[in-house]
Amino acid sequence: MLLNILQFVQHHIKLAVQAGDTVIDATAGNGHDTVFLAQCVTNSGKVLAFDIQSSALLNTRNKLNELGLSEQVSLIQAGHEHIQNFCHTGVSAIMFNLGYLPGADKNCTTQVTTTLAALEAGLNILLKDGLISVVLYPGHEQGLIEAQTIEKWTAQLPQQQYEVLQYRFTNRIHHAPYALLLHKRI
Amino acid sequence: MLLNILQFVQHHIKLAVQAGDTVIDATAGNGHDTVFLAQCVTNSGKVLAFDIQSSALLNTRNKLNELGLSEQVSLIQAGHEHIQNFCHTGVSAIMFNLGYLPGADKNCTTQVTTTLAALEAGLNILLKDGLISVVLYPGHEQGLIEAQTIEKWTAQLPQQQYEVLQYRFTNRIHHAPYALLLHKRI
Repeated sequence: MLLNILQFVQHHIKLAVQAGDTVIDATAGNGHDTVFLAQCVTNSGKVLAFDIQSSALLNTRNKLNELGLSEQVSLIQAGHEHIQNFCHTGVSAIMFNLGYLPGADKNCTTQVTTTLAALEAGLNILLKDGLISVVLYPGHEQGLIEAQTIEKWTAQLPQQQYEVLQYRFTNRIHHAPYALLLHKRI
Repeated sequence: MLLNILQFVQHHIKLAVQAGDTVIDATAGNGHDTVFLAQCVTNSGKVLAFDIQSSALLNTRNKLNELGLSEQVSLIQAGHEHIQNFCHTGVSAIMFNLGYLPGADKNCTTQVTTTLAALEAGLNILLKDGLISVVLYPGHEQGLIEAQTIEKWTAQLPQQQYEVLQYRFTNRIHHAPYALLLHKRI
């Protein structure tokens, strides 16, 4: 009955995004979020999808091609901390799915410093009423540090400008993933 | 764009409750939740509303009368830890709104021990797919202790039987209220 983490995030991203919008997948990974965003904006919109791993972008490209969604997506092999080099304003949603690429090198994981830089850049280019979703994975060591740091950083965002919402199942073993939503109010 | 705590709780209670159901307001207080539950179950259903303060029950009774909702509500002047004396099974939803009655004696607040006893009793009489909502108020000293204790207790509920979800705005000053939902899975 309760939406799981993925359903919850997608439900809110859908509410924030319209056909024709510009949106960002900050962690293309296996392409799951990129496909979802490409469907939300339709071929009149634009998705910028970032990843530093070429294998991630290749997987994502293949998925988009299969589904006929390539037209509205630009795949960018760069760290998400460089978002503002590729997009300066007018973004209605940005999705972060942190951690490592499933099935690939577990040592190649998102890093606290670059993730925080990307979040800060993301807030800068977000439209009023835009939304950033962050899925955190505290189940591995680096992920736990990252989750705690991001939680602390987001909790200090000024209440007048942002709403920060945590959606988390608390009785799961092995530190299950959870979501943060950052809503830009003004 | 994001549902506030009250909207979030009501949205999920509505999904869990049908006309004709039996439900419980564990903290009648000013009657807000009792009215909402009475509307959910309609006059074919039943609401049991508990409070230890007669002024709370009087306020609630007046509100129900004004709205023509008295028929389906039993007001019970007893602590919610005694729920099972009044109802043994078959409940689809229970709402807890902790802390003290707005406008009344702030020293008359819910207490950790009795709240935990009530939650445990509540889980016992809940139907499969039933829902308990708990709104916590960590902004006053007793409320903070209560919130922390309940958070810890609910986080240890077995995952096979229950989902425990936390919905919380994290960048609010003065420890804003937040919600827990307990969903009985089997």
